Amino acid sequence: MKKIKKVNAAILIIGNEILSGRTQDKNTIFLSNWLNSKCGILVREVRIIPDVEKIIIKNVKNLSKKFNYLFTTGGIGPTHDDITAKSIAKTFKIKYGYHKEAYKILENYYGKKNFNDGRKKMAKMPITSKLIYNPSSAAPGFVTKNVFSLPGVPSILNSMIDNCKKYLVKGSKVHSKTLNLFTVESNISKKLGIIQKKFSKDVDIGSYPFFRLGKIGVSVVYRSTSLLKLKQVSKELNNLIKQKKLKTLKI
Amino acid sequence: MKKIKKVNAAILIIGNEILSGRTQDKNTIFLSNWLNSKCGILVREVRIIPDVEKIIIKNVKNLSKKFNYLFTTGGIGPTHDDITAKSIAKTFKIKYGYHKEAYKILENYYGKKNFNDGRKKMAKMPITSKLIYNPSSAAPGFVTKNVFSLPGVPSILNSMIDNCKKYLVKGSKVHSKTLNLFTVESNISKKLGIIQKKFSKDVDIGSYPFFRLGKIGVSVVYRSTSLLKLKQVSKELNNLIKQKKLKTLKI
Repeated sequence: MKKIKKVNAAILIIGNEILSGRTQDKNTIFLSNWLNSKCGILVREVRIIPDVEKIIIKNVKNLSKKFNYLFTTGGIGPTHDDITAKSIAKTFKIKYGYHKEAYKILENYYGKKNFNDGRKKMAKMPITSKLIYNPSSAAPGFVTKNVFSLPGVPSILNSMIDNCKKYLVKGSKVHSKTLNLFTVESNISKKLGIIQKKFSKDVDIGSYPFFRLGKIGVSVVYRSTSLLKLKQVSKELNNLIKQKKLKTLKI
Repeated sequence: MKKIKKVNAAILIIGNEILSGRTQDKNTIFLSNWLNSKCGILVREVRIIPDVEKIIIKNVKNLSKKFNYLFTTGGIGPTHDDITAKSIAKTFKIKYGYHKEAYKILENYYGKKNFNDGRKKMAKMPITSKLIYNPSSAAPGFVTKNVFSLPGVPSILNSMIDNCKKYLVKGSKVHSKTLNLFTVESNISKKLGIIQKKFSKDVDIGSYPFFRLGKIGVSVVYRSTSLLKLKQVSKELNNLIKQKKLKTLKI
């Protein structure tokens, strides 16, 4: 992986089961963490959309243009509602058909006798795509231009993710620190706003209420590619703690 | 609530903590289920975006136009990164300032002495918005045109949600049935595709692999506003079970 400064990505979750509230999405949190910690790539937008071809095409077109990378999850299995591969082929006007290497992988995995139409469908994709190998259930994901297509089942996605690395350009890792304070947001909001303004170029400061051990608290999360700037913010936050006489929670 | 046929909605999750993978989003699954089961409203798109004003404005504009309702979560607290209210005011070119009723509610809740600037900020919103009362921590959500703005903390959002009902037009509830089969998707994909085609107007059929009790299975989920059509699909699926001699799993 080559290293450049700021690399970003979007995630497109394709699947009625997530939209309908039937299934809890677990791929966003996994992909965001993996992309940032392993590749220094920041996820800047996530969309969840239904299994509808023209909606998939519109979103793939839009997000692949706006961001360095797009990761799609879902819709690459053998059934009628698995239309991601075909939709991506249409998006980029690439021929949709059997990918020779994918076909061979799946034929080997199932054996010639059991290699039925449903299974063969999983070898169909934009024919010029590069494969993302799948160590757990053989059916590969694929990379088309800057779009990475992965399955929706979290355990399978997780097993494949490291095979995306070789196709990605690495960015600078965003470091993150968290300070847990036993106080309410409105008690520190003014000072926190001043600190954020001072470091607006380099550090993102977020503030999130929590309830723990029967008490109300605030997690102050600050993130930056620069460890030096994070240290400077830590110093300012320590001053705030002293000034307001706040208790902290270590976890 | 008046009853019309098809009513849809989008969800806009505003918050760096979800995008960065720090926090698991729980609001999508809760809102989708509540909207469908209580109001017959179908969620058709979800987006997760950062706390950046121009990005919020662009997405609120786009999604509030495309769908009957838009639900935003996050960014309505007292700190510098809570910019949802201001962004929505800008989106619709409505004055941003103290909402009289919200101000009174919060002043009562905190007492005049403790009603500091951070807390006062939570009474600021598009001044013509209608309030969504908050029984757990007082700070209200608000409805601006067709946009419902709720907090990001799931427990608080959940406690407020019933207070949205009076502002919503009800749609037809989507009923859902699930059939769990001990088989692999590729064994039933062909027949499932034929059934979906036959009922393409009225029923959505999805197929989702599962792993349970050491076995591989497929959940076939079919959804429709018509109970009659669901029954017809059940019959077709029973034929498939007999034909393929499949075992089912009841849960």
